[in-house]
Amino acid sequence: MSFNTFGKLFRFTTWGESHGPAIGCVIDGCPPNVAITEKEIQIELNKRKPGQSKFTTQRKEDDKVNILSGIFKGKTTGTPISMIIYNKDMRSRDYETIRNKFRPGHADYTYFKKYGIRDYRGGGRQSARETAARVAAGALAKKVLETKIGKKYKVVGAVTQLGILGCNIKKWNDKFILKNSLFCPDKSMLKIWQKYLLNIRKAGSSCGAIIEIRAKGVPVGLGAPIYSKLDMDLASAMMSINAVKGVNIGSGMNSAQLTGEQNSDEIYQYKNKTNFKSNNAGGILGGISTGQDIIVSFAVKPTSSILSSRKTIDKFGKNTSISVKGRHDPCVGIRAVPIGEAMMNCVLLDHYLMNIAQCKN
Amino acid sequence: MSFNTFGKLFRFTTWGESHGPAIGCVIDGCPPNVAITEKEIQIELNKRKPGQSKFTTQRKEDDKVNILSGIFKGKTTGTPISMIIYNKDMRSRDYETIRNKFRPGHADYTYFKKYGIRDYRGGGRQSARETAARVAAGALAKKVLETKIGKKYKVVGAVTQLGILGCNIKKWNDKFILKNSLFCPDKSMLKIWQKYLLNIRKAGSSCGAIIEIRAKGVPVGLGAPIYSKLDMDLASAMMSINAVKGVNIGSGMNSAQLTGEQNSDEIYQYKNKTNFKSNNAGGILGGISTGQDIIVSFAVKPTSSILSSRKTIDKFGKNTSISVKGRHDPCVGIRAVPIGEAMMNCVLLDHYLMNIAQCKN
Amino acid sequence: MSFNTFGKLFRFTTWGESHGPAIGCVIDGCPPNVAITEKEIQIELNKRKPGQSKFTTQRKEDDKVNILSGIFKGKTTGTPISMIIYNKDMRSRDYETIRNKFRPGHADYTYFKKYGIRDYRGGGRQSARETAARVAAGALAKKVLETKIGKKYKVVGAVTQLGILGCNIKKWNDKFILKNSLFCPDKSMLKIWQKYLLNIRKAGSSCGAIIEIRAKGVPVGLGAPIYSKLDMDLASAMMSINAVKGVNIGSGMNSAQLTGEQNSDEIYQYKNKTNFKSNNAGGILGGISTGQDIIVSFAVKPTSSILSSRKTIDKFGKNTSISVKGRHDPCVGIRAVPIGEAMMNCVLLDHYLMNIAQCKN
Amino acid sequence: MSFNTFGKLFRFTTWGESHGPAIGCVIDGCPPNVAITEKEIQIELNKRKPGQSKFTTQRKEDDKVNILSGIFKGKTTGTPISMIIYNKDMRSRDYETIRNKFRPGHADYTYFKKYGIRDYRGGGRQSARETAARVAAGALAKKVLETKIGKKYKVVGAVTQLGILGCNIKKWNDKFILKNSLFCPDKSMLKIWQKYLLNIRKAGSSCGAIIEIRAKGVPVGLGAPIYSKLDMDLASAMMSINAVKGVNIGSGMNSAQLTGEQNSDEIYQYKNKTNFKSNNAGGILGGISTGQDIIVSFAVKPTSSILSSRKTIDKFGKNTSISVKGRHDPCVGIRAVPIGEAMMNCVLLDHYLMNIAQCKN
Repeated sequence: MSFNTFGKLFRFTTWGESHGPAIGCVIDGCPPNVAITEKEIQIELNKRKPGQSKFTTQRKEDDKVNILSGIFKGKTTGTPISMIIYNKDMRSRDYETIRNKFRPGHADYTYFKKYGIRDYRGGGRQSARETAARVAAGALAKKVLETKIGKKYKVVGAVTQLGILGCNIKKWNDKFILKNSLFCPDKSMLKIWQKYLLNIRKAGSSCGAIIEIRAKGVPVGLGAPIYSKLDMDLASAMMSINAVKGVNIGSGMNSAQLTGEQNSDEIYQYKNKTNFKSNNAGGILGGISTGQDIIVSFAVKPTSSILSSRKTIDKFGKNTSISVKGRHDPCVGIRAVPIGEAMMNCVLLDHYLMNIAQCKN
Repeated sequence: MSFNTFGKLFRFTTWGESHGPAIGCVIDGCPPNVAITEKEIQIELNKRKPGQSKFTTQRKEDDKVNILSGIFKGKTTGTPISMIIYNKDMRSRDYETIRNKFRPGHADYTYFKKYGIRDYRGGGRQSARETAARVAAGALAKKVLETKIGKKYKVVGAVTQLGILGCNIKKWNDKFILKNSLFCPDKSMLKIWQKYLLNIRKAGSSCGAIIEIRAKGVPVGLGAPIYSKLDMDLASAMMSINAVKGVNIGSGMNSAQLTGEQNSDEIYQYKNKTNFKSNNAGGILGGISTGQDIIVSFAVKPTSSILSSRKTIDKFGKNTSISVKGRHDPCVGIRAVPIGEAMMNCVLLDHYLMNIAQCKN
Repeated sequence: MSFNTFGKLFRFTTWGESHGPAIGCVIDGCPPNVAITEKEIQIELNKRKPGQSKFTTQRKEDDKVNILSGIFKGKTTGTPISMIIYNKDMRSRDYETIRNKFRPGHADYTYFKKYGIRDYRGGGRQSARETAARVAAGALAKKVLETKIGKKYKVVGAVTQLGILGCNIKKWNDKFILKNSLFCPDKSMLKIWQKYLLNIRKAGSSCGAIIEIRAKGVPVGLGAPIYSKLDMDLASAMMSINAVKGVNIGSGMNSAQLTGEQNSDEIYQYKNKTNFKSNNAGGILGGISTGQDIIVSFAVKPTSSILSSRKTIDKFGKNTSISVKGRHDPCVGIRAVPIGEAMMNCVLLDHYLMNIAQCKN
Repeated sequence: MSFNTFGKLFRFTTWGESHGPAIGCVIDGCPPNVAITEKEIQIELNKRKPGQSKFTTQRKEDDKVNILSGIFKGKTTGTPISMIIYNKDMRSRDYETIRNKFRPGHADYTYFKKYGIRDYRGGGRQSARETAARVAAGALAKKVLETKIGKKYKVVGAVTQLGILGCNIKKWNDKFILKNSLFCPDKSMLKIWQKYLLNIRKAGSSCGAIIEIRAKGVPVGLGAPIYSKLDMDLASAMMSINAVKGVNIGSGMNSAQLTGEQNSDEIYQYKNKTNFKSNNAGGILGGISTGQDIIVSFAVKPTSSILSSRKTIDKFGKNTSISVKGRHDPCVGIRAVPIGEAMMNCVLLDHYLMNIAQCKN
């Protein structure tokens, strides 16, 4: 049982508050002899860090990672890897005005009721700042899997719906996604999305999003019945990301409307390779990977910090109202893309190691 | 790490195959001094058992539960509770014809590839028969929570979409749900659904469904940041149910299309009680229960066993095709209702105990 | 967290009370494709079962094991293996006289204080009857390791001290141990021990014992720093056995009296093989196996059920006294030998799988 | 499963190498609203830190702890507490000469064989330097238990045997222990021990020790059958300390020589309080605390780093010899006292929380 640890064999524990001195993670169970550098970790962290475009919060953070243990002469040693990121831009005064009020949609109320105490500075532990630590863990997981499986292993995420605007998923283009600050996979929608989002920001409002994460090159056999199913752990992983309210595997919620004939992913053998005619299953059957792409999508609710005044109560139980100014993302879903990728990498490595332990010994 | 165990403090381990001599579960961590009878367990099992209407499989199983340990003079003793259900109607010969073929949509292929061996009789361990064991565990969890919280605690599930047919969720009626074999919450839709489903059964086809589970009377403060969030564990729990492909908490996937203003569940105090104007959050903020109803929904894909011929391969890698006769549910989603309820009860008890351990000591 | 589960990757959960209908275990994480029969399990159970000689309790139990799941066509499938042993000789009436009194040295008092309820029939869950279930799990672990490592892998235990009588450990003889009902390793001591023990039995008294378990053929590299050390898990395993009060690895408690020079197990290479001049370390350095024999010993306290009257209290807090008649082992340490072997097999398999997961992927 | 994490509900994860930039720990599951300061942690760390007397290593380390998270306005918040200790005195050059040789009695050989890589600087992760991190965790556990149980709760450890020299345990004096640098409990032995140890140091040799840890004020009911017994977890905790080879609970290994009559701790009621006439059980029956003092002792082997030349091999498998100069403790057992106390505090808090979760809900 572990409140702040994720994973079974490849485990990471995160710690730190939004406005404390630092945040970080400790990774346990990483295989030895994998080459890894701070720079490789930094590349993934840079995808997530704030203040990079006008579409995200203007909080300025380097998110510079330091590795404190577990690496010797550039390689993992099998011992725990401790990584730390110092917080820089901590304008705690911003939060003094809301120290006694519960922001609707945030975890202010529930944290206070559960613990009887809360670090209100920027949300403290409940802040999405925690996700930087797991992106660092995910960068390591990615490197381990690339080392074990090879370069055919690849995880890419994108925003597939921005508020009320969808996109043509068939136009998904890995390279284009990495080049635009909205992680939009469909070139034809980018400008429309940008305009839409700027209007939301100007209005002091916010919107939700749907993010899709795809993993290629995943071997058949990862996952385990009944309560360590790969899709259970992926659903759990994505639901752990701040503001996520729904998770789909493959056709997901839409599966309900399909007939058995439509949903069935027929199988055929071609040139000594097993293929599937479709992928409604999202690459997972019975909780175990099929060898197809793993496809997970999840919905991120709109940022709860908005300009317009909302009714709420304070910690003394008195009715009041609140309007949150500060520096917020108009759509937190955008920065959820590298986080979703990180979680995918971590879950897959965890199951990769579990499969070896149980079935390849 | 535990493949076949669910939970952290209230833990159940299930075992058994569809066509083995028996299935069962062992429950560890159940509080002592809770009165429980086999009859109370049986009531929940009877909701799930097959062969009860023309809308479900015609396999005949009593699903008669026997408690083998952990109860003394009608009360739990704090020691493990072992429950066993003997399999009765095991027509293994039905499965001989498909012993070497992989049924599309089933876990036949993945189990074989993972383990290099599989009990093909009725799907073996991958069969939904396993869920009887967890319904038994859920019945116990329910009784414990009723004992601790009182009768205001209540979990009710329903089918809210049957294939392409929805219903009016505002007409949700707890009593009506329990009276109809489709767990339909909307009286006006029952006959339409029945007709639709009979047609699907006659055609040898199948359809998917959406199930919603609601828990009332849940105290504020259950759940824990960051990697033991209540919604993580609920998503994981529902995704562990056979054929589930998507999970929503509250507004779920629809959250993506809301604005911050629409999504925000405003808070107010009335007569010394905290209230919320809406429940888009599904009763969970920051992974912790708010005291509102917990609302979870999930999609069940259409039964993969259908009459029409599908392309597939056999275990030797040869192309072939398959048509599954046998005795199957036209919509496995229906019998998922008591399973979803069971998982809700188990997750809530688990978090109820965790909350006490961490915060009420 | 699991009260009644042991292990990390190879996990077994036991259940059942001394005078309930049955006891059993569920094994999770067993590798697939290992041939195993009920007969192989039974051989180990027979070593432990009561009523076999005049040196152990006269309770008559077949301890006949039934495998209910997880085996298909004689091989493990990777799914949970459920084993059940029905209780036969349950003279519950024997225990009515002590239902309200706490036997000194037994767990009667602590169970009652902890749980507020206890199954007093034969000690209920606290009875050493539980160990039959783990001997079954250990028999499976043994078979898996023999399959993976080969026949050079071998675990043998013996009684090395019986009450105040020691033996010459250098005369350790595997074959002789299996042939005598006291698991005495030193032929010259057997008759002396037998006479001594019969006198203790006649007097209605009891004595303690030291048991030593040796594992040969264990590969170098099993174990893990810092909190999954092989010796931690072995100490924990042996301490879980009823009545055990001390555990040594190699020289154990005697290490305190050695100098650095005496204790140092010098290393040398001979014919491409690493050797050690001594084995004070008991085959474990830094929590990791060295490739030498793993040597663990543990002390079992004298049976607490004795004929002479002892002062105690009853459950109402009144002073009283008790004399335990019943059918008891004069030295519970003897039957601890196969239990210690079982735990050794389980811990080694667990670490064997963990080592593969972390280091051989 | 967690290689570098200890505990179930109160969990700490340590990280860091002897000669890396820092070491530290992350504590998860600490109850909220407990007042704690860095100064309180530092007091315990100071007991363990090196360079304090001529009886321990001359490595100079401040062991200054910094709390990076989980504390807000002087109180725990229920979120993870990250503590860091920077390494100061890292003369890595000292270790260059032994980079390719395996020191007998150390974990050099096993780490290298397991991982295929090792940080040889000062033993890297295998160094006892790691224990500073757990002493920090233990200091927090101690404060939590004092807050919950009150000042009657108290853990004190001492050296009860130094090499071949014992002491009169009946003269145990808490205050005297804290005043002398050998943690000697018996005033009459201190000078004899000091002289003995200085001679060992001068000779470049080393000796072992036995340490005893006593906990007073522990409530009845902590611990849990069958595989979370309090004595299992204590044995595991003590065995996790570097160089520990044996663990006793109460009479421990000596139990083997007692008769049932001698061993039985008779119970009686006096002024509404349950008492025991003796404490051979070390305060634990059936894995559950009796309310008596918890008494655990353990043996620490002599320091493996000694001046005299020992035969060994190098990493290429060639025979060679080694003589370890460096700055070493002549008896590592001495500094094991605060470590044993820390582990006792952690295990007791863990079981305190577990008991509440299972039995006080």
